[in-house]
Amino acid sequence: MTGLPDQARIAKRLEALWQIRLGPGGGADRPAFSSAEAEAMLLAAGWAREAGLEPGLDVHGNLWALPPKWTGGLVSSGSHLDTVPDGGRYDGALGTVLGLELADELREGTDAGARPALLVCVAEEAPRFRAGTIGSRLLAGTLAPGALTELRDAAGTSAAEAQARFREQLDELATLEPPLARLRAHVEIHVAQRRALRQIGVVTRVAAPRRFEIEVRGQAGHAGEVSMEDRHDALAAAAEIVLAIEVAARSEPPETVATVGSLAVAPGALSVIPSSARLGVDVRAISAPSLDRLEAAIRTAASDVASRRGVESGIRLLRAGDPTAMDAGLAQAALEAARHQGIAATETWSGAGHDAQHLAALAPTLLLFVPLEGGESHTPAEGADETDIAGAALVAREVLTALG
Amino acid sequence: MTGLPDQARIAKRLEALWQIRLGPGGGADRPAFSSAEAEAMLLAAGWAREAGLEPGLDVHGNLWALPPKWTGGLVSSGSHLDTVPDGGRYDGALGTVLGLELADELREGTDAGARPALLVCVAEEAPRFRAGTIGSRLLAGTLAPGALTELRDAAGTSAAEAQARFREQLDELATLEPPLARLRAHVEIHVAQRRALRQIGVVTRVAAPRRFEIEVRGQAGHAGEVSMEDRHDALAAAAEIVLAIEVAARSEPPETVATVGSLAVAPGALSVIPSSARLGVDVRAISAPSLDRLEAAIRTAASDVASRRGVESGIRLLRAGDPTAMDAGLAQAALEAARHQGIAATETWSGAGHDAQHLAALAPTLLLFVPLEGGESHTPAEGADETDIAGAALVAREVLTALG
Repeated sequence: MTGLPDQARIAKRLEALWQIRLGPGGGADRPAFSSAEAEAMLLAAGWAREAGLEPGLDVHGNLWALPPKWTGGLVSSGSHLDTVPDGGRYDGALGTVLGLELADELREGTDAGARPALLVCVAEEAPRFRAGTIGSRLLAGTLAPGALTELRDAAGTSAAEAQARFREQLDELATLEPPLARLRAHVEIHVAQRRALRQIGVVTRVAAPRRFEIEVRGQAGHAGEVSMEDRHDALAAAAEIVLAIEVAARSEPPETVATVGSLAVAPGALSVIPSSARLGVDVRAISAPSLDRLEAAIRTAASDVASRRGVESGIRLLRAGDPTAMDAGLAQAALEAARHQGIAATETWSGAGHDAQHLAALAPTLLLFVPLEGGESHTPAEGADETDIAGAALVAREVLTALG
Repeated sequence: MTGLPDQARIAKRLEALWQIRLGPGGGADRPAFSSAEAEAMLLAAGWAREAGLEPGLDVHGNLWALPPKWTGGLVSSGSHLDTVPDGGRYDGALGTVLGLELADELREGTDAGARPALLVCVAEEAPRFRAGTIGSRLLAGTLAPGALTELRDAAGTSAAEAQARFREQLDELATLEPPLARLRAHVEIHVAQRRALRQIGVVTRVAAPRRFEIEVRGQAGHAGEVSMEDRHDALAAAAEIVLAIEVAARSEPPETVATVGSLAVAPGALSVIPSSARLGVDVRAISAPSLDRLEAAIRTAASDVASRRGVESGIRLLRAGDPTAMDAGLAQAALEAARHQGIAATETWSGAGHDAQHLAALAPTLLLFVPLEGGESHTPAEGADETDIAGAALVAREVLTALG
């Protein structure tokens, strides 16, 4: 085996991706299904050819690069190339360029005769369409293609329109059928998004978000003319619900979290008692019973607060989500490979969503985290250490080499 | 004395004002400094001529109607003619048409030889420019004309531009100097805005709002990747502050109230822990010590919550306000006049702001409330009973007649 990875090549490719488009905050700016994401895909397609692979696009817009004329088993690797607004240098991009390194390294095939492939999933980041991991969910069949007409960005463009334009921009690439039946394993390497992780993370569980909208309807009134006693203030009720959600999440294991990320108040005038409040709630856990308990506690809190305050509350599931288990055999093999090569690694979990958790339904999948250097994720300051990057690649190579 | 008031004329005039412009919700729609408010002013100017008065506009846009060639004392009456969006039939309009009735009735002068005048203050309602009682505050000198360039509506038009256009639309009216030195007394009759008031209200104190913006700055983070323990969630801190404000207001006398009417969360995404929250707070009391205690409690709560949660908080005074005392002698006279005429009346207070509280700095001022029939204020369903309307007018007439 040759030395892996080629740090200079990785750095050069990350820089080329970074330079495609910078946002106002100086970070990488390649929104889902944008022309910047398409340009990044073309760069990766060119690099795949250098690794002896033939690139092509599936009907969803995912980039595949496959060994030419090969009809046998495949071990794929890769991540995504879109970013959040003003995102970092490593998120998605790192796993893609390391997928190329692995493909180059495994040209001759694995011990059991499988060949390497690159898979770059499209539209992984949620900000543009308020829905993430679009490409991998379409591939896994857990997102219906028809749903893309309902997802719209801030300018009113639907994800379906954006996807069609994206594919047009990449029409120089052949269209191919996803080689799902030939997939023996998939590996995604990704920068961690939790500061606390200080070594290579081998992910065993991923906490898919379960999301709710809670609406509280109280009674508007003149801020000066309704006594405190006579009020049915929707915002005060919402504030109690926010705090009850926090208390409920704190009583669960530390991997279980709940976030009220948005709160809209109407009418929103200083002189009017709020008549309604709408809360956006995101809950995550790596244990399904913990997630279910937390959901039940939130439902109870909303209804108790409402009845005590004489307001109405409704709760609507925006997105169902359950914890996903990653392939236990691959995770075990990764921990052994790390120990064997003297690389510090630990079993861990992901609170953030990743393409790997959806691809896990299609093939045994390994998700490896590279610790964040500096501790910032999804910002221009995102960093990762060269030794950690090399470590993750070496672990992945050993795991894939043994497969077929 | 002739019979007062002329219910048919009042109803006809209220209907004429109502028909000027209706909003999408079917209510009166005459925003501050709008062409609809100008049209209403022109109607009132015409009616003032029927009552033997000569109308004119002061430099601020307030409508005055004065006895021609008269240089002696004046007793003025009136209210305003603008409305909130989709407002009611009575708010402002009632006090204006009753001012016309009083002017008609007192043509011959008061017992002490003063003559009646009409004063219709411009731009009383706050929604358009987020600042109310503009005309009366300009008159009282508590709002600087220069401040109007800073107030902007949702379309970006400044109050100064709107005021200039408003005056152009009324250029058929003479410009006059406000006859402040000749003002012996002013009376404003207004529909109540508190449901609980069930008889004529003689207002002795008005609770001017004191307003604050509280900003909480926490730390953003991925909703799935920061444990509950490690969070500095700006919204959770803001929720505690909302509830602490409610508790503090509840421990004060029933006339003291506090409202958090707006709450803006950033970044406002479901997958991101809120990094900042901005609360708009309105506090009111008819007792200055109670108001000061409440403000101190709010400041303490914001700083305690912030330090306990490791977030920062700042509090900014948006508008200073202190309770205003209305003229005690006029209030006493009104209560006696009511008793004397067998009209049910009670001493009361106002939690809402009114032009009368600002005019009180210029002349002894009486503010009378007509109970709301049906209990809705600032909506198309706002109602008032004919007997109550007549009662308020009769009380005002007796008080003004005795003056000079």
